[in-house]
Amino acid sequence: MLCLVSESFDAVDVIITKRGREELSDGQIDWVIDAYTRGVVADEQMSSLAMAILLNGMNRREIARWTQAMINSGERMDFSSLSRPTADKHSTGGVGDKITLPLAPLVAACGVAVPQLSGRGLGHTGGTLDKLESVPGWQAALSNEAMMRQLEDVGAVICAAGAGLAPADKKLYALRDVTGTVEAIPLIASSIMSKKIAEGTGALVLDVKVGSGAFMKNVDDARELARTMVDLGTDAGVRTVALLTNMQTPLGLTAGNALEVRESVEVLAGGGPEDVVELTLTLAREMLAAAGRDDVDPADALGDGRAMDLWKAMIRAQGGDPDAELPTAKETHEVLVPGDGVLTELDAYKVGVAAWRLGAGRARKEDPVQAGAGVEMHYKPGASVRAGERLLTLHTDTPEKFERALEVLDGAFTIAPEGSRPDLLPLVIDRVD
Amino acid sequence: MLCLVSESFDAVDVIITKRGREELSDGQIDWVIDAYTRGVVADEQMSSLAMAILLNGMNRREIARWTQAMINSGERMDFSSLSRPTADKHSTGGVGDKITLPLAPLVAACGVAVPQLSGRGLGHTGGTLDKLESVPGWQAALSNEAMMRQLEDVGAVICAAGAGLAPADKKLYALRDVTGTVEAIPLIASSIMSKKIAEGTGALVLDVKVGSGAFMKNVDDARELARTMVDLGTDAGVRTVALLTNMQTPLGLTAGNALEVRESVEVLAGGGPEDVVELTLTLAREMLAAAGRDDVDPADALGDGRAMDLWKAMIRAQGGDPDAELPTAKETHEVLVPGDGVLTELDAYKVGVAAWRLGAGRARKEDPVQAGAGVEMHYKPGASVRAGERLLTLHTDTPEKFERALEVLDGAFTIAPEGSRPDLLPLVIDRVD
Repeated sequence: MLCLVSESFDAVDVIITKRGREELSDGQIDWVIDAYTRGVVADEQMSSLAMAILLNGMNRREIARWTQAMINSGERMDFSSLSRPTADKHSTGGVGDKITLPLAPLVAACGVAVPQLSGRGLGHTGGTLDKLESVPGWQAALSNEAMMRQLEDVGAVICAAGAGLAPADKKLYALRDVTGTVEAIPLIASSIMSKKIAEGTGALVLDVKVGSGAFMKNVDDARELARTMVDLGTDAGVRTVALLTNMQTPLGLTAGNALEVRESVEVLAGGGPEDVVELTLTLAREMLAAAGRDDVDPADALGDGRAMDLWKAMIRAQGGDPDAELPTAKETHEVLVPGDGVLTELDAYKVGVAAWRLGAGRARKEDPVQAGAGVEMHYKPGASVRAGERLLTLHTDTPEKFERALEVLDGAFTIAPEGSRPDLLPLVIDRVD
Repeated sequence: MLCLVSESFDAVDVIITKRGREELSDGQIDWVIDAYTRGVVADEQMSSLAMAILLNGMNRREIARWTQAMINSGERMDFSSLSRPTADKHSTGGVGDKITLPLAPLVAACGVAVPQLSGRGLGHTGGTLDKLESVPGWQAALSNEAMMRQLEDVGAVICAAGAGLAPADKKLYALRDVTGTVEAIPLIASSIMSKKIAEGTGALVLDVKVGSGAFMKNVDDARELARTMVDLGTDAGVRTVALLTNMQTPLGLTAGNALEVRESVEVLAGGGPEDVVELTLTLAREMLAAAGRDDVDPADALGDGRAMDLWKAMIRAQGGDPDAELPTAKETHEVLVPGDGVLTELDAYKVGVAAWRLGAGRARKEDPVQAGAGVEMHYKPGASVRAGERLLTLHTDTPEKFERALEVLDGAFTIAPEGSRPDLLPLVIDRVD
């Protein structure tokens, strides 16, 4: 039992406040975030506070203050000197979610600059930077100056967030990841929004995933997260809108780094899976509208090749060769359809874990990923399938990984009798603004 | 979001289990305690687990397994080769709680050996070792061999627990202290009982304090803690009984190291405050009964000087001089009775914090304590007092500390009109066996 000696704040006192379901004061929040960033509050103190927040919650005022304190821990970027409006998109993460890849060049081709600071994958969800790094030569790291220049010259940039942006969030995110405190809506919302607000985008479209392959397993939680983030963005002067989208089954037909780049390029070439095209266009329209350009139809830019041209320019600007052959995995293994019928279920989480176990993802931050590894799907839920056809193709450079991937795929799909229909949520479930 | 790769246990998985209000398996508990002791589970992981346990609880099986795992983290002592039965006492900690000092020699004088492994004070509650260290020459550290020899030759030993006893608990206790996770009944119970069971005592009497100056502020929580600990002891083959005793007001008339030794010696000399004498005799009777010696009346050993002789032998065996002058503080400050009436309240917590601020306690493990510092009380609740009489005498070597001590004493006592009676729980509130 510790009693306070000094007049200033004390970590144990802050923890006990939240442990007792009381509200943290503005002063407590400012102090604890700043002291944690400086190492005065220790990791073990922040993790017990994070667990207390996860179990006891925070109200709107607390979340807003927490987010602001994380923004204040680092630098802020400013795109107001650009000749174009800016819009960014953030997805809460899912399986096969390569939407950023076609979306950023598409929106830029429509006249709105896209400053997309992205992350790497951890666990079963992929990371945009890991995907782009399968393009030969492409570099994720850019200085702030190079990013500004590329935004002005090309219009779209996808790069790693610099260390100066919300360092409190970086430290806290790494801590939450190993302490079982990731799945707290106040902490997820403040983590995402502190980076996006500090990044300085004028408009922001949030893609909040719902379903087995997402953080949020049900619509109510996802709606609460969306509402929390939209409020945070709006209060900070960023035009923010959120879509709740389906992550019960993977997006598109691929999960894995180079596999997803290939599918993205198909979309930019006017083809690609229907769900990827639809979500790309829906999000593009939201970003354009939020940036004040709802007069432009992104379908035109996709159809006439302008989005593809911008993709190539964006890749080249960061050292990549958009025309080079993409890496492929050394080995493949086919999973066949076991019997005639309708594919009614193809579980996003299990496919994500399989891709991850095949080498597409990492267990620890320092681990490398295999560019060619992943899962290729030959059918989407709703398709009629016949026994013996290919259902999934597994790709890896290390064939000993097939066994563990196949283990998790046990029960990942359901073939129902002819005439059955999958019980799926719509692709876009709801919109929060 | 982290998925398990290996077949063995994973800290995040254990945390998420308890976070979700599920039971931890025996395997999870054994693994997490062992891995934490070895440093494989990090402090920040254990602290978020501790917060989840604090907020979501553990059942009897989980607590028993957790305790056993902590015992298994270190060595166990064995007193079965002694020529006498053994009995130990543990208090959950309070203000002015010097009972161990007269109790251990008293019980030993009645033919039952007392192996008392004690701790130091942290926060507002004092530590038995700190108190005894105010006796010139006395040493807290003993080897296991020296402890056994003293138990056989003298019959009583009060010393510091060796580093080999329940090292998992030592590490976890230090962590809980700085992470706001002290006040969890499963963790308090397993911490106390793992040490007492590993210590190898045959019988154990628990003094569970209730009131402002104790961990447990209300009788229901104290009863739950007592029940939990008695079950743990009984399941481990230790004859265990618990008393719930009053800690609304300090025990006796002193709180501070040398001040409490002086009061203890008064009790051994046949005098001393009534409540200290009563609680010492009550606990002695419980210890003797638990050790199978309920034929002996400890009041005799207190009355005829045998307890005092044993006290002197016990102090000498550890290098102390029982006849030496005890240290006194350099400065004193009197708090006077503000008006005529009855003292109806004298708050244990506030007196404890005042003694602590005067230098009797420490804020961090490494801090020294002042032997002479503390609070001397001139009246107990229920006494009639007159304006201008001395109510409290504050002792310290560092007079600049008076101000902060007086601050916390503001509102620490109540003088009610003549004829009023204090609203206090009895000294012994309940008994759990």
